[in-house]
Amino acid sequence: MTVHLHDLHVRTLGEGRHPSPFSERLADKQTSPHFVHEDDRVMLDDTISVVGATPAADLPSFETAGPRRRIYFDPAVTTAGIVSCGGLCPGVNNVIRGVVQELTVHYRVRRILGFRNGLRGLTRKYRHDTIDLTQSGAEITRSGGTILGSSRGDQDADEMVDTLVARDVDILFVIGGDGSIRAAMRIVDAITRRGLDIAVIAIPKTIDNDLPYTDQSFGFQSAFERATDFIDAVAIEAAAHEHGVGIVKLMGRHSGFIACYAALADPGADMVLIPEVPFDLEGEDGLLARVEHHVMTRGHVVIVVAEGAGQDLLEAAGRLDADGATDASGNLRLGDIGQFLTDSIRAHLTRVGLQPTLRYIDPSYSIRSVTANAYDSVYCLRLAHAAVHAAMAGRTETVVVRWRRRFVHVPMPLITSHRNRVDPDGDLWMSVLEATNQPETLAGRGPARPAPTAP
Amino acid sequence: MTVHLHDLHVRTLGEGRHPSPFSERLADKQTSPHFVHEDDRVMLDDTISVVGATPAADLPSFETAGPRRRIYFDPAVTTAGIVSCGGLCPGVNNVIRGVVQELTVHYRVRRILGFRNGLRGLTRKYRHDTIDLTQSGAEITRSGGTILGSSRGDQDADEMVDTLVARDVDILFVIGGDGSIRAAMRIVDAITRRGLDIAVIAIPKTIDNDLPYTDQSFGFQSAFERATDFIDAVAIEAAAHEHGVGIVKLMGRHSGFIACYAALADPGADMVLIPEVPFDLEGEDGLLARVEHHVMTRGHVVIVVAEGAGQDLLEAAGRLDADGATDASGNLRLGDIGQFLTDSIRAHLTRVGLQPTLRYIDPSYSIRSVTANAYDSVYCLRLAHAAVHAAMAGRTETVVVRWRRRFVHVPMPLITSHRNRVDPDGDLWMSVLEATNQPETLAGRGPARPAPTAP
Amino acid sequence: MTVHLHDLHVRTLGEGRHPSPFSERLADKQTSPHFVHEDDRVMLDDTISVVGATPAADLPSFETAGPRRRIYFDPAVTTAGIVSCGGLCPGVNNVIRGVVQELTVHYRVRRILGFRNGLRGLTRKYRHDTIDLTQSGAEITRSGGTILGSSRGDQDADEMVDTLVARDVDILFVIGGDGSIRAAMRIVDAITRRGLDIAVIAIPKTIDNDLPYTDQSFGFQSAFERATDFIDAVAIEAAAHEHGVGIVKLMGRHSGFIACYAALADPGADMVLIPEVPFDLEGEDGLLARVEHHVMTRGHVVIVVAEGAGQDLLEAAGRLDADGATDASGNLRLGDIGQFLTDSIRAHLTRVGLQPTLRYIDPSYSIRSVTANAYDSVYCLRLAHAAVHAAMAGRTETVVVRWRRRFVHVPMPLITSHRNRVDPDGDLWMSVLEATNQPETLAGRGPARPAPTAP
Amino acid sequence: MTVHLHDLHVRTLGEGRHPSPFSERLADKQTSPHFVHEDDRVMLDDTISVVGATPAADLPSFETAGPRRRIYFDPAVTTAGIVSCGGLCPGVNNVIRGVVQELTVHYRVRRILGFRNGLRGLTRKYRHDTIDLTQSGAEITRSGGTILGSSRGDQDADEMVDTLVARDVDILFVIGGDGSIRAAMRIVDAITRRGLDIAVIAIPKTIDNDLPYTDQSFGFQSAFERATDFIDAVAIEAAAHEHGVGIVKLMGRHSGFIACYAALADPGADMVLIPEVPFDLEGEDGLLARVEHHVMTRGHVVIVVAEGAGQDLLEAAGRLDADGATDASGNLRLGDIGQFLTDSIRAHLTRVGLQPTLRYIDPSYSIRSVTANAYDSVYCLRLAHAAVHAAMAGRTETVVVRWRRRFVHVPMPLITSHRNRVDPDGDLWMSVLEATNQPETLAGRGPARPAPTAP
Repeated sequence: MTVHLHDLHVRTLGEGRHPSPFSERLADKQTSPHFVHEDDRVMLDDTISVVGATPAADLPSFETAGPRRRIYFDPAVTTAGIVSCGGLCPGVNNVIRGVVQELTVHYRVRRILGFRNGLRGLTRKYRHDTIDLTQSGAEITRSGGTILGSSRGDQDADEMVDTLVARDVDILFVIGGDGSIRAAMRIVDAITRRGLDIAVIAIPKTIDNDLPYTDQSFGFQSAFERATDFIDAVAIEAAAHEHGVGIVKLMGRHSGFIACYAALADPGADMVLIPEVPFDLEGEDGLLARVEHHVMTRGHVVIVVAEGAGQDLLEAAGRLDADGATDASGNLRLGDIGQFLTDSIRAHLTRVGLQPTLRYIDPSYSIRSVTANAYDSVYCLRLAHAAVHAAMAGRTETVVVRWRRRFVHVPMPLITSHRNRVDPDGDLWMSVLEATNQPETLAGRGPARPAPTAP
Repeated sequence: MTVHLHDLHVRTLGEGRHPSPFSERLADKQTSPHFVHEDDRVMLDDTISVVGATPAADLPSFETAGPRRRIYFDPAVTTAGIVSCGGLCPGVNNVIRGVVQELTVHYRVRRILGFRNGLRGLTRKYRHDTIDLTQSGAEITRSGGTILGSSRGDQDADEMVDTLVARDVDILFVIGGDGSIRAAMRIVDAITRRGLDIAVIAIPKTIDNDLPYTDQSFGFQSAFERATDFIDAVAIEAAAHEHGVGIVKLMGRHSGFIACYAALADPGADMVLIPEVPFDLEGEDGLLARVEHHVMTRGHVVIVVAEGAGQDLLEAAGRLDADGATDASGNLRLGDIGQFLTDSIRAHLTRVGLQPTLRYIDPSYSIRSVTANAYDSVYCLRLAHAAVHAAMAGRTETVVVRWRRRFVHVPMPLITSHRNRVDPDGDLWMSVLEATNQPETLAGRGPARPAPTAP
Repeated sequence: MTVHLHDLHVRTLGEGRHPSPFSERLADKQTSPHFVHEDDRVMLDDTISVVGATPAADLPSFETAGPRRRIYFDPAVTTAGIVSCGGLCPGVNNVIRGVVQELTVHYRVRRILGFRNGLRGLTRKYRHDTIDLTQSGAEITRSGGTILGSSRGDQDADEMVDTLVARDVDILFVIGGDGSIRAAMRIVDAITRRGLDIAVIAIPKTIDNDLPYTDQSFGFQSAFERATDFIDAVAIEAAAHEHGVGIVKLMGRHSGFIACYAALADPGADMVLIPEVPFDLEGEDGLLARVEHHVMTRGHVVIVVAEGAGQDLLEAAGRLDADGATDASGNLRLGDIGQFLTDSIRAHLTRVGLQPTLRYIDPSYSIRSVTANAYDSVYCLRLAHAAVHAAMAGRTETVVVRWRRRFVHVPMPLITSHRNRVDPDGDLWMSVLEATNQPETLAGRGPARPAPTAP
Repeated sequence: MTVHLHDLHVRTLGEGRHPSPFSERLADKQTSPHFVHEDDRVMLDDTISVVGATPAADLPSFETAGPRRRIYFDPAVTTAGIVSCGGLCPGVNNVIRGVVQELTVHYRVRRILGFRNGLRGLTRKYRHDTIDLTQSGAEITRSGGTILGSSRGDQDADEMVDTLVARDVDILFVIGGDGSIRAAMRIVDAITRRGLDIAVIAIPKTIDNDLPYTDQSFGFQSAFERATDFIDAVAIEAAAHEHGVGIVKLMGRHSGFIACYAALADPGADMVLIPEVPFDLEGEDGLLARVEHHVMTRGHVVIVVAEGAGQDLLEAAGRLDADGATDASGNLRLGDIGQFLTDSIRAHLTRVGLQPTLRYIDPSYSIRSVTANAYDSVYCLRLAHAAVHAAMAGRTETVVVRWRRRFVHVPMPLITSHRNRVDPDGDLWMSVLEATNQPETLAGRGPARPAPTAP
């Protein structure tokens, strides 16, 4: 995908009108290896072949995040609102705490409303059922989940803006994924149409790590760390039984990042199946033949499968809902690839006389409700600080992310433009193939390589 | 520090002479957002202000790591040696396992010697006491430490090269820090002088994260994660007692990274003291006054101090060895800043009538012997794979690192040229100040800001 | 159940014929609060009302475990065999290690065979595929599962005794549950019939804690500790959604101990359903009404259900296999009570207008494959030591257990005589009711209390 | 020690005057294997040799804990107070939560005061600084330490009783150790002298497990579990270095239980030194010779030492404070046996030419501030419930403990009569010797066995 310069332009409500509490601290700073000045920018690409081919003025680049010397909102009279949306993800409470801490301690904002149960909390019915977040402290980070609650699905944008007006909210922080950021964009549209002076900032949340222009989404490390417990479990079960087969299904509707990283972290995984890399069941290089070979030569086999993998096989086998049912977020319901593989492998191994012992685990929700690990705790805190700086400086329709270890601002339309996926031609998938020694293709009819995806 | 183009040039023993087992897989690949082609390079800097000011041909950049289409060593007749040096660090066994896996499974190398107890294992006396690593599997990653053992200090370079020759070693992998990489450079010199065809590749190890040109050193996340247990411990103790003071001393002789990250990860920390930021004890903004204020207003206080912080205060107080004793690695022995603070704060608070309960913990070795967490497990594996690719391709005097999330090759002289330190003007320290709300300076005589350091 | 004195009599192969390596250490010892002499016995009951009513000579009591001053087998020429059977359980490797350690270090036994994959390893086909356990060390305890492998189901007793004879085995240690101990009894019968001099000792394994005359089975604490992670997960999910319902299904076919202890350990559980306490779905005090009430008043509800609970409801709903299918161990296949509750509660809450968000987790195998925690590590080691002492002293058809914190010998027929179950009239269930505040009965038609079970 | 019947008599304020909320639930219960009726008693001893020698009427036995059919205090007008004293211990918050839960949910007590910072909170100065505990929920168990704070040392009994009167307290729960229970006895004396109707119940807390008549003190398992982390750390360090010596000092002033259990749980420990078993440094079987032998034959050695071990050696070496300093609780200050061993072993090994690498860790406070593990969470909850039942039934000067897996009442004078210590002739120490294979004595002059201690 070609990214144009104007795609990277971040909207702002206006010039800084007030001195920032950080003015003095920022006074003398210049861009350095450890700091990017607010007038400098961070490049999208970082290889010579790409950068060398472009005049400097045309290099795609991001606005840097961080405190500004002047800010747009007057903290003394600013009200902030926070809402968390969609599925749970480790670190949401850490983000909430970080936003509250930065707002109260550094900017001295005195009114912070927590809207409950996702965007539903911004509807007329629930809009007065808010939590006073100025009193919430670090203890909220001891638990996974979100103290604000969550929900899936969108709400009427104008009704939500009514709520912002009714509750005097100047800044809305949205902790959510793809769908929630699109909803935030509709809120921004309504705000703009009405000529209101309200900023909307998103802190992107996706346990699948499938948002683009992001090093790794917050909570991702905590999630795949927990996922390794289940690979361990099936690997121990498989190894303890003759012809043992362990299968663990991990989150990843469209992107197999959790499956890949968990399999890299845990030496127990022998094969990794992800949505980005199609595979065959039948045929001499198909999955069943490979599983049979592994069980014959090693005694057992462990398969890590992302929930979105092999949906074409399920469809061909008639194991998908005919009518394409979707959930409240509009996601297509997936067929159960884990159960399908379990059934198919049991039938195959039994047929070839290797009476198997199968162990299939679907840890589902237990991976995403863990508390943030130390790394994610740091990451969430710093993301939250960046979000507050962006908001106080008047940015809107803006997402804060980390890009090649720099905190930067990304326009909402860009981050929802496509999904981040595991590139079958990229370094990560090659690492998975090296670590598991699984063949490059599991295809009965030869390699089937999908087109590489955008960043 | 200005880095010149030639500083980034990596030495190689010669052109690729053999087809790589990865040839086919690499055939069509071009640089993409997820892969850097072997003819492309990764830029040192990534901001417009720096890059825009330089002609593309002059942009400092690193050679990319990864498999090459042609390799220098013939795997069928190659012997590899591995040695681990210096202090323990989470992930060393993961690196060993990754090197062994890549060598045996992918390149089909059949002889891998593990030299024991650091460089001492390369001396004449110990050179036959090696471990056959081709048999070691993933189970070694279940334990911290190193299955090869370690030691501090250098050995005679010629004697070590004699060992490499005597044991037919073609490639030596050195897992070690600053001192060990310098030793590796002396080995390379001796190899070059003798005209031998031996490659030396280092995987840089430093629990203090103080090697430059590296995103984060392996094991660092596992280490600071563990460190938070001790901040928790003193925070709980301090909170449970009237006028409670908790002090935890963390590793960091010259660089306070562990202290900073652990304090960001754990909400219990109220003040962070690191070697890079001097502080005063006395005076109205000095540490003692701040501690007193904190105890008065909040009831208790928790201080995280890096072992190398405040050495000037210890010297002034006559609490350093007069004769500048050093350890086997040539490191200056540090005074015990944790005990000094404990004594000083006890005396001060007692004097002002706030009879304190002090809790001082020095977790020392217990932080560095933990097993690698999931993230570090992935990182170590991928670093190890990169090290094997570099070696098989004939690179020597080369270090493999991750730089802005790309795996690259760095010449040994560059990575030992200076230390990575926390920049008092950088993003990280600002995050610490934001998270702890400690004042920017703890100085009785006004701000004392050291000069910013190189990357 | 009435236990007769003769039920507690343990079989022995003969008098001690050799001095024990522990002779000297035992020389002067008498029964004390911390030691029970080998001529003393440990009482079955411990309350005044029971003991006071019986002449001392008639008090049911167990033979104490521990080293004897004289032993039956000559260590220099003794071969031991070890086999692990049935489902995995935390601590099996610790037991194996403890047996090996005691045999080799203290008794100086020099030949220990590990039979693989359960009793199947004792069949003719597999009998030479043993592992030399004298070389296995403490590292095996770092992993869950069993290094020996396991299998379900019995094998021909005479064929297994043939194997013991063919491999010169003098002592067979069986790590297994109810079914495996019955198999061991058949092996003892065959040994006796043939007049062989072979001892068979069992270390009882049951993750469900359902063997009688046992304080708690090994691995039980590790298992319920892990189970709390899943209660946390559904509790966090339930709390984060309007009308959230969390359901976690835990092991416990006939006995709800894991469900009870996990629910006591985790404050998230609101209701606990176990096989021992029937409940109704419908009716004004039935489960559905209680769930509705809880969701209305508290916003969400968390249910912990043992897999064997409510099978009568499943049968009534036609959700059990009509033909009473059984698994390889002869266990009746259970219906999925977790899914049934999920479906029933969803239907009910939807009907009454409380559109629920349901989260159902079945952690299944992931609970039993964890490594032993510190307590279980100690317990397994001491059980293993006791098993070795029993065997060397010539005991056979004997199980070693801990009874009111004493290690004692129990005859195999007694320990397989019935199941240990949660007593609805006992202390434990009362604690569960106190901790969860669930009503004493969940019955549409009034209390339905089953008869109390034996110890 | 001989225990007389009357020593086991528990004081009560009077007959039950009110129906208990548990009346109905208790109506039909009789003593069973899982329940002890309130009119029955639990025997002190459980071996035939002891019990058989005594007429049933004279058997020492404890009153059973648990709810009574009639209670002394009217819940509607009862005020409870809670105070936590002495050093931190895992599970204190769980006990507090359990007491509050039972009081509020089951007995419907509506006023519960949390006195802060130990007995100091009962002095005139602090007596109005209480926490309303009726609002504290399960979230307090997520953190170690105590939400009430703590302090060492006694306060004037009459002043404390004044506080109870001033704050209308009917029941005082004391969570504390030996010293605090003695203080509680003085409070009871003052209450009795004044003829007040106030109950005092203690939940015994001792991380050292040194209170008698108790299976294991709460928090003990969590503490020794954490302690194994440090044995791991020094074992990994020792194994990674030539002539490596790892030493870890664990809590245990008079009783070496933590050292023993941690060493049994962790295979890394080679020697265990406890206060109960004297040892020599010098001589052919002394510690130094054994350490030398171990390092020579195994390459390294790991020593686990309780803080109270070897104080006679320190005294002989002049490394104790001459003036017998004591801390606020009146405990004699101990010399640092860990540092002493480190120095002695370094000198010895250096002298014999085995230049050692020594690693000494003193984890100190970091062991006792952990959160309760799953087992301790259950145990604390059940202890707390028992304490509330005892109090509501009018018991006073009473401690609730678990004795051979039964919850019972013990009079305060009995539980403070002596210390629980590791019996050098008992099962536990024999298990340690079996597990570590350390010699029975480490004595230059032959065995030095102290007299066995009371239970």
